[in-house]
Amino acid sequence: MEFISKRSRYVVNPLEEEDAIAEKLRKKGKEVIELNRGDPPVYFKTPEYIIEAYVSALKESKTHYVASAGVYELRNAVAKRYKRMYNIGVDEDSIIVTQGVSEAIQFINAAMINPGEKAILFKPYYPIYIPYLLNYGGIPLFEKYSERLKWNIDTDSLEKTIKKEASKRPKYMLITNPNNPTGTVLDRKVLKEIVELANEYDIFLISDEIYDEIVFNGAKFTSIGELAKGMPHMILNGASKDFDATGFRIGFAIIPENDKKSRQIKHAILQYAQARLSANAPAQYAVAEAMNNVKEHNASIRAMVKEIESRVNFATKLVNESSYLTAIEPNSAFYLFPRINKDILKIKDDREFVKRLLIEQQVQLARGSGFGEEGYVRIVALAEKEILSLAINKINEFCKQHSIKR
Amino acid sequence: MEFISKRSRYVVNPLEEEDAIAEKLRKKGKEVIELNRGDPPVYFKTPEYIIEAYVSALKESKTHYVASAGVYELRNAVAKRYKRMYNIGVDEDSIIVTQGVSEAIQFINAAMINPGEKAILFKPYYPIYIPYLLNYGGIPLFEKYSERLKWNIDTDSLEKTIKKEASKRPKYMLITNPNNPTGTVLDRKVLKEIVELANEYDIFLISDEIYDEIVFNGAKFTSIGELAKGMPHMILNGASKDFDATGFRIGFAIIPENDKKSRQIKHAILQYAQARLSANAPAQYAVAEAMNNVKEHNASIRAMVKEIESRVNFATKLVNESSYLTAIEPNSAFYLFPRINKDILKIKDDREFVKRLLIEQQVQLARGSGFGEEGYVRIVALAEKEILSLAINKINEFCKQHSIKR
Repeated sequence: MEFISKRSRYVVNPLEEEDAIAEKLRKKGKEVIELNRGDPPVYFKTPEYIIEAYVSALKESKTHYVASAGVYELRNAVAKRYKRMYNIGVDEDSIIVTQGVSEAIQFINAAMINPGEKAILFKPYYPIYIPYLLNYGGIPLFEKYSERLKWNIDTDSLEKTIKKEASKRPKYMLITNPNNPTGTVLDRKVLKEIVELANEYDIFLISDEIYDEIVFNGAKFTSIGELAKGMPHMILNGASKDFDATGFRIGFAIIPENDKKSRQIKHAILQYAQARLSANAPAQYAVAEAMNNVKEHNASIRAMVKEIESRVNFATKLVNESSYLTAIEPNSAFYLFPRINKDILKIKDDREFVKRLLIEQQVQLARGSGFGEEGYVRIVALAEKEILSLAINKINEFCKQHSIKR
Repeated sequence: MEFISKRSRYVVNPLEEEDAIAEKLRKKGKEVIELNRGDPPVYFKTPEYIIEAYVSALKESKTHYVASAGVYELRNAVAKRYKRMYNIGVDEDSIIVTQGVSEAIQFINAAMINPGEKAILFKPYYPIYIPYLLNYGGIPLFEKYSERLKWNIDTDSLEKTIKKEASKRPKYMLITNPNNPTGTVLDRKVLKEIVELANEYDIFLISDEIYDEIVFNGAKFTSIGELAKGMPHMILNGASKDFDATGFRIGFAIIPENDKKSRQIKHAILQYAQARLSANAPAQYAVAEAMNNVKEHNASIRAMVKEIESRVNFATKLVNESSYLTAIEPNSAFYLFPRINKDILKIKDDREFVKRLLIEQQVQLARGSGFGEEGYVRIVALAEKEILSLAINKINEFCKQHSIKR
């Protein structure tokens, strides 16, 4: 009898290897430039008005267990936000507060997936989607965000796949919009087609919209909630990115409709939420207050997005000036996902690229294969321009040294 | 194809029915005395020095993602606490911070249990142990905390069960000490025998010690870590009860030894922790500082335990003065778990007792069957004596009205 469960083999951290190398380098006294973590508060302090709201909750002794679905104040603030921003009507009972979107992903898979059942995911994917699906015996059915389509979804290919699988219908389809790792907002037209396909083939549609306010370069974001009115679907979001508060661990799932499937999944997720009692209480009150403080929030998010836009564009330009990496210009989040032009490099794959770059130049990126897309790297463009410039120069120097022409 | 997974049927909240009734009563304007929630900060404000530590962490912008295993400061504080309190040597890498003990329970079952494998639990159990085990296809093997032994474990019965199962060895054995719902500290002698059995039959031993500082009436608590030195085991604890901060959702798992099994389970749990990124960051720093502030903590916990002791004893005396309920005198936590003397009552079972008591007298208890022990109720004795007195009078009045002699 093995001591560790079979399912645990699926819960591997694809970045563990690099993290261990970086840790060793730091222990040797070397400074590592980390462009691998999508963690805004490291670069932009969580706004003062949010901290103050959190402090108030603590001083008001809001330190006990709260409702498993989340405090009413936060669910109400979320409902008002969706009405205000997207004209989506959703009542408080359709919202469940989670410990980050990652917990929502866990609940979704626990609640929906029987062993052997499938879910449609898109490569490159947010890594966390995978272990929870596999952990519950689910099987991913991979479609693609296509580089050729500037990282949009090829809905013809998607339809073919769905048709092929129609008899053993996939349980859900999960899109990430705006996207991590590609930094792309999905086209409204593409989203409409996805909604139609989900509806036609009766596949529960989930949209992870955690970066919905970090959109720039003239792009326009559409929430799935606007297009999927009248059909079962779920929106995932949280305080981590828009409210610059990753460490609060406050996410939420919104299931706006009231059809049978929506009611069933709401009830099931609530039961999973009850089994862990509640999310952090004072953080929920803080986010509720922050979300209702539209004026302060708008000022903060606008300033942050403006600066992110400038940094992302700066990094993209620098990356594309060399011939070693080629990045589609992002219009959201804070990621670049450039292709490694391996034909001019003596580097086998993205894993070798990232490992050797880290060892030789002390710059840490995340490898594309960690997102299911070999041959790419993810660069987080949250650091100040001087750091980004220094790091990209080091990347170019590294590539030059491993260039075939050299 | 059912939309909701088969495993979800196991994730039911045994108190949902009562909660729904209480909610309805409140909507009708009736006041419900809730003696059903083990939530100390509702009755004893989280101490000021902990709130201040939390506020400091927020003002120092500790609001980003932190290590999945927990911040070093907290793991270090936990290690020092165990050295100081129990002379248990454990290094920081043997500690994993979780979002409450409930998350640790989830990780344990995910990491250890293959479908069809067994785990030894004891009735009456803490309800959350069950859904996570069943959810991963595990099978509980129930032994008993025996009322006859003042809620201690009958180790002869336990040994028989283990012997019977020796060929298909249970994966783990989980005890709760001090105990919820019985309010009992397990005897050191009983614990020694349990450790020996776990060792002899190679069953991984887990002790949930979340109430370890809430011990009174002269009882003495022994951590499993003191007795299980040199053999694989795990201690669960957290900030919820000893630090009077349930709403922080900060728990931890300690796996002190360095044998193969201990290393495997540490690694597996860490991987599950990585899949959810991290626990709330500022709360971790707050608990670390609180745990290191021995002087303030000792003053707070002593005052709280003294008051709890007084309230528990007051409630126990009142309950036992009637002939309708009989409670073993608790010596820890803040629960009474009296038997319903059904032979003198026209009440079918604990479910009917709790429902009718709630509807007729607006006093909410938790039914024993929710803890796997039909015929009992759990009373939380955290409220002020006037409230406890009022509630227990109402319980007695209710029993009188449903008495057979009436």
